[in-house]
Amino acid sequence: MSKVEHQDATVLTDDELRALDAHWRAANYLAAGQIYLLANPLLREPLRPEHIKPRLLGHWGTSPGLNLVYTHLNRVIGKRGLDALCVWGPGHGGPSIVANSWLEGTYTETWPDVTRDEPGMAKLFRQFSFPGGIPSHVAPETPGSIHEGGELGYSLAHAYGAALDNPSLLVACVIGDGEAETGPLAASWHSNKFLDPVHDGAVLPILHLNGYKIANPTVLSRLPEPELDALLRGYGHEPIHVTGDDPAAVHRAMAAALDRALDRIAVMQRTAREDGVAERVHWPVIVLRTPKGWTGPAEVDGDPVEGTWRAHQVPLAGVRDNPDHLRQLEAWLRSYRPEELFGDDGRPAADVLACVPAGTRRLGATPHANGGLLVRDLPIPSLDRFAVPVDKPGATRHEPTRVLGDLLEQVMKDTTRRRDFRIVGPDETASNRLQAVYGATGKAWQAKTLPVDEHLDRHGRVMEILSEHCCQGWLEGYLLTGRHGLFSCYEAFVHIVDSMVNQHIKWLRTSRELPWRAPIASLNYLLTSHVWRQDHNGFSHQDPGFVDHVLNKSPEVVRVYLPPDANTLLSVADHVLRSRDYVNVVVAGKQPCFDWLSMDQARVHCARGAGIWEWAGTEDGTREPDVVLACAGDVPTQEVLAAAQLLRRHLPQLAVRVVNVVDMTRLMPRDEHPHGMTDFEFDGLFTPDRPVIFAYHGYPWLIHRLAYRRAGHRNLHVRGYKESGTTTTPFDMVVRNDLDRYRLVMDVIDRVPGLAVKAAPVRQTMEDARTRHQAWIRAYGTDLPEVEEWAWGTGA
Amino acid sequence: MSKVEHQDATVLTDDELRALDAHWRAANYLAAGQIYLLANPLLREPLRPEHIKPRLLGHWGTSPGLNLVYTHLNRVIGKRGLDALCVWGPGHGGPSIVANSWLEGTYTETWPDVTRDEPGMAKLFRQFSFPGGIPSHVAPETPGSIHEGGELGYSLAHAYGAALDNPSLLVACVIGDGEAETGPLAASWHSNKFLDPVHDGAVLPILHLNGYKIANPTVLSRLPEPELDALLRGYGHEPIHVTGDDPAAVHRAMAAALDRALDRIAVMQRTAREDGVAERVHWPVIVLRTPKGWTGPAEVDGDPVEGTWRAHQVPLAGVRDNPDHLRQLEAWLRSYRPEELFGDDGRPAADVLACVPAGTRRLGATPHANGGLLVRDLPIPSLDRFAVPVDKPGATRHEPTRVLGDLLEQVMKDTTRRRDFRIVGPDETASNRLQAVYGATGKAWQAKTLPVDEHLDRHGRVMEILSEHCCQGWLEGYLLTGRHGLFSCYEAFVHIVDSMVNQHIKWLRTSRELPWRAPIASLNYLLTSHVWRQDHNGFSHQDPGFVDHVLNKSPEVVRVYLPPDANTLLSVADHVLRSRDYVNVVVAGKQPCFDWLSMDQARVHCARGAGIWEWAGTEDGTREPDVVLACAGDVPTQEVLAAAQLLRRHLPQLAVRVVNVVDMTRLMPRDEHPHGMTDFEFDGLFTPDRPVIFAYHGYPWLIHRLAYRRAGHRNLHVRGYKESGTTTTPFDMVVRNDLDRYRLVMDVIDRVPGLAVKAAPVRQTMEDARTRHQAWIRAYGTDLPEVEEWAWGTGA
Repeated sequence: MSKVEHQDATVLTDDELRALDAHWRAANYLAAGQIYLLANPLLREPLRPEHIKPRLLGHWGTSPGLNLVYTHLNRVIGKRGLDALCVWGPGHGGPSIVANSWLEGTYTETWPDVTRDEPGMAKLFRQFSFPGGIPSHVAPETPGSIHEGGELGYSLAHAYGAALDNPSLLVACVIGDGEAETGPLAASWHSNKFLDPVHDGAVLPILHLNGYKIANPTVLSRLPEPELDALLRGYGHEPIHVTGDDPAAVHRAMAAALDRALDRIAVMQRTAREDGVAERVHWPVIVLRTPKGWTGPAEVDGDPVEGTWRAHQVPLAGVRDNPDHLRQLEAWLRSYRPEELFGDDGRPAADVLACVPAGTRRLGATPHANGGLLVRDLPIPSLDRFAVPVDKPGATRHEPTRVLGDLLEQVMKDTTRRRDFRIVGPDETASNRLQAVYGATGKAWQAKTLPVDEHLDRHGRVMEILSEHCCQGWLEGYLLTGRHGLFSCYEAFVHIVDSMVNQHIKWLRTSRELPWRAPIASLNYLLTSHVWRQDHNGFSHQDPGFVDHVLNKSPEVVRVYLPPDANTLLSVADHVLRSRDYVNVVVAGKQPCFDWLSMDQARVHCARGAGIWEWAGTEDGTREPDVVLACAGDVPTQEVLAAAQLLRRHLPQLAVRVVNVVDMTRLMPRDEHPHGMTDFEFDGLFTPDRPVIFAYHGYPWLIHRLAYRRAGHRNLHVRGYKESGTTTTPFDMVVRNDLDRYRLVMDVIDRVPGLAVKAAPVRQTMEDARTRHQAWIRAYGTDLPEVEEWAWGTGA
Repeated sequence: MSKVEHQDATVLTDDELRALDAHWRAANYLAAGQIYLLANPLLREPLRPEHIKPRLLGHWGTSPGLNLVYTHLNRVIGKRGLDALCVWGPGHGGPSIVANSWLEGTYTETWPDVTRDEPGMAKLFRQFSFPGGIPSHVAPETPGSIHEGGELGYSLAHAYGAALDNPSLLVACVIGDGEAETGPLAASWHSNKFLDPVHDGAVLPILHLNGYKIANPTVLSRLPEPELDALLRGYGHEPIHVTGDDPAAVHRAMAAALDRALDRIAVMQRTAREDGVAERVHWPVIVLRTPKGWTGPAEVDGDPVEGTWRAHQVPLAGVRDNPDHLRQLEAWLRSYRPEELFGDDGRPAADVLACVPAGTRRLGATPHANGGLLVRDLPIPSLDRFAVPVDKPGATRHEPTRVLGDLLEQVMKDTTRRRDFRIVGPDETASNRLQAVYGATGKAWQAKTLPVDEHLDRHGRVMEILSEHCCQGWLEGYLLTGRHGLFSCYEAFVHIVDSMVNQHIKWLRTSRELPWRAPIASLNYLLTSHVWRQDHNGFSHQDPGFVDHVLNKSPEVVRVYLPPDANTLLSVADHVLRSRDYVNVVVAGKQPCFDWLSMDQARVHCARGAGIWEWAGTEDGTREPDVVLACAGDVPTQEVLAAAQLLRRHLPQLAVRVVNVVDMTRLMPRDEHPHGMTDFEFDGLFTPDRPVIFAYHGYPWLIHRLAYRRAGHRNLHVRGYKESGTTTTPFDMVVRNDLDRYRLVMDVIDRVPGLAVKAAPVRQTMEDARTRHQAWIRAYGTDLPEVEEWAWGTGA
């Protein structure tokens, strides 16, 4: 592999080349040093076993390539005065990014203990993958990073998210050829159809083909070059190929490639911004093909290592016990000539630092990678303008997400100039009834448009693609660089990003412990088109388990809200859009839903997170109620209120309390979640000893898992979704899952001591209603008229 | 859009064309009829409101295109005598596939009530998306389907899975342009690098560009054709474009395209099979560009509908109440000239059926789509050959997955001729220590190979790609067509397929209720490289929540096993590989782990699913124990046994019972899971009233959610992973999460009545050990020697 393409008219002087190579060698040295060395960082004495770490951890294979990219980005940033950020997809190469950050000084500025001298280098080496030190991948601890390098697949979507509404920013994105095999990355290539050359910055993908994964060649590295070229052109890019294993030749080619790519980006941005040309842009992509573990041991124990999968992690193992390997390691490290790279005090030599840009232009210092430094409070208008009037509960109906859409339209309008708020969704913004936002902005779209299209807009800030992965990745990148947003998604299919949200929660959890990372806007989900209203789509679209999923994760970060009507949704939205460093999951319906609370009542109720709805119950205040009917979620709330009304009519002596829960984490113990109720509060709401019939939106056992420590847990009986569904009517769905009003009344009768006999006729009446439902729906395909016409307060 | 490409030398006679068009029109009529009609199926009288369904549900937009493909597949299957299966990616078009199945007779054979005559047609129409009827998408209920049409993104991976090891099968796969935007689909295109032209069948992707999603144009449909062409060539395909909106022209072009594609496939298969040519094959892909909602209403209320996003679902709404729409619907339906298509009795006319192939060649009748008809028991050798010898517990160590690898090698060997067993994984088979299988087969790979590559094999049956989505999709397709397999995956990243496994569980749950669907082999996960042993990768690689995720789903289908050592892993593997219609999740370590049970003991223990390890406890059999130490998972088991030993030494009077749980669903109530213990069994194991300290592999609250109904639940204290992790040592991980032996002893002292004072010095000793650990690890980066050297029975 010695061919070098696009070795354009040399742009580097020999001095520049020497300096770039020095920086690269220094970074390579520091990366290898982090993996191996516990002491003797500058090799002032021959390597001895005790200088070697007891556990050799880290990924060498990708590091030299990353170092090359960092070095060359330094050059162009400095030369062109760029505002740049880099997303390091092969973030397993943590030692590389840490090394570069140390060289440029940002590591020491961020972690003052790790000074830019010999003692600091010793600390740098020791801390890497060492207990109490730093993780092995690029992580929140790494200056300049917005992208955890553990799970692969999200780099390119993160890069696009960072570039949106950052017109002067260049976002470079190194994509590993392993990562490139993942679905999310494969989908992200088409993000360029959504990047506005006027208001957004540029994304420069650098596809790094080092040929191997852990144990296999990569798919893309084994495509014939014309085929790979066709693929990238098909993705809408202009490929620039850099291939080689001779450092000097690759330096020259990489410098030329970057210059060519950046020239082209500059031309295209100018064309769009100054000349108003509205053609879709074919952005450059650099294909960098260099050996895995480049400059590392060529062979170990007779097996080829450099340029193979054997270089993936630690190319030389057992160094403490194997004198040959120890010698080989020493020769490898000395091959970088550290004595030329570092002064006597261990500080990097001037040559090494020649390419490093200054101040916040350094990749480790860009404020865009510490978005909390840039984030501004979102202008959120007064909710009263959007609230639905509620004189009495349950008399009118609204579609909650449509009401929210009006609020979001105003937020969109008020951020027209700031451009720091976006809505993302998989082709569902209108389906989820948020279409009012199109009054303020359109849907981002750079490809061809036809007259029949609606709301497409080259400069729009609603982003729709049928890929939940892209939506999530874009939004994460956007938030991490200091902006705001909302992800509106069908409830069932948000599971597609389960693994992505795990990583984002981990990122936030770790970031919160780093004082230098300023808080960023929360990641807000609006989950709608939910389990109970899949009339159209049926069983495959029914899954309320995302709430369970996120509630397993760090409680410092996770919040879950189930507003039961339009005004409570407004109140919750107001709260989550103002919040920082959380993942907020809001589950709300798009179908017409009774209005229960006025705006003022909604504010108070949401602030409490859970409360008694006195007007719905039949307590007289003199004693504990006979039974508590609890609910969380819009459909369960409706069924509980209908049940409360049936009880009022059929069993008027029964003292019923109705409790509604908006904030699910209120149910958790106080010492497990910051929102958790004390036992005193919990008992005050649910009683310590009365039967509680809890109608919950999702899987019923979640309530048990949140409340199992409470005194009254034994009296808790939960109804919810139990995977019984098909294409059917809304009421049939609740009947199938035993969440319907009639069943809830039966539950009350079965659980309240002494009612079984006395209320047997009432129970039979409920059974009869359920039977009548079955017959009706089979005959007519619709719900019972008494159910369709039901409203609170009628027929009581 | 009237251009038609590749209108090759006409291959259709006028008669053939007329017959194909008749079939297509019939299918279109039947698809629309399902969406709209409750009665008057043959339009014998003018349409009246009461003939119309009260709720109009269904997706018309994609249906005419699907009908076109079905019609033309019929032609080539018949003409060429093909063995074919089709995966319908745009499965929202359920009415289409049902319509075609009814036409060819397989619907009636499967659902005898729905006869192929007028009364049957009336039932067919009424049942669609009607309560008590059939779902709106392609589903298990649909004859000939292996692919639920609800969630999008998995069609192409399913198609490849079906084609593997089915050399004479053609798997057509219609990919919608909406679905094509998803990550999983985008990744699946590269599956062609893994398809063996000798032993596998052919996959023919048909990319159906109808231009729109719910509310947006699709990305691929708006690419200039040369760009789309480059993309598909970059994916390794030879594109054949069919574009048009004139039915006759499109019929001719589609017939020519299919002939060309199938000719090419035949040539390439012959070249590989007979001439032994080992070049990677560039398979054809058909790009079919036709209008969305083709042949439906061109305009409704002045808005264009046909060919736009407005045709996505129900193009004419409110038909019952809007006389104009009713008239327009009638005109639309009559435009297909049903009187020509169906006889007086409602049976399809001879012309309509002319293209339909016979018997099991019909797409609705292929046994490949009902894999249980084809599945054979896997030859599983006697476990004794692979068992590790265990004379006494905890004296030796093995890597459980490596031991399993030996067993899997034998299964691979014994299926060499049958070729009905595959292992899939994201580049981790060797990393997960299953590399023994390479003694029997290699890794599937059709691209270029280099001398340094290992185990790559054009005919291999291990499949590695860095895409969990592809792994899952391939395996699902393979299992659904009657074969066996195993998915080995890093535990944390199996969350990537959360949403896919949801759909597969739903599929199995529904299939089990359909007597005509024969049971298929279970989907088996081996989750390893688990949360406790991420020394290398740290926090980003730690997530044990997949177990929680699947346990939310249908209990009829889900099984979860945590074998604590090598022999129990063998026993569990034996069980899951023989099982049918389950999703089995097996969590097991790859690191050296103590051997606790002999093979015979392991068999008995696994059959019980949970049991007392008498040898580990200190009960004397005369009374209830003072405390129960329970464990599930390999690392928790080790810590519990170390704790038991500490208790034996420090508190010899304490009667300790040790319980190990392998089958997590045993903890559930009997009426919630078929494996659930009765309360009598549960109390017998865990006691109704003694403290239970439960060391669990994953999130601790899972145990509470499984056991909250048990008498002894209040005495249950669970330790597990609580999201505290980084790159550190194995023992430091358990200390960070309070799962370590010292903490467990402290828990015992804190929970057993009367011990607090008496055992205070022991408690302090434990505290001291934890403090010593902290100091040691900070100094040396390794675990305490007493922990590293610990083994059962030493120092007692």
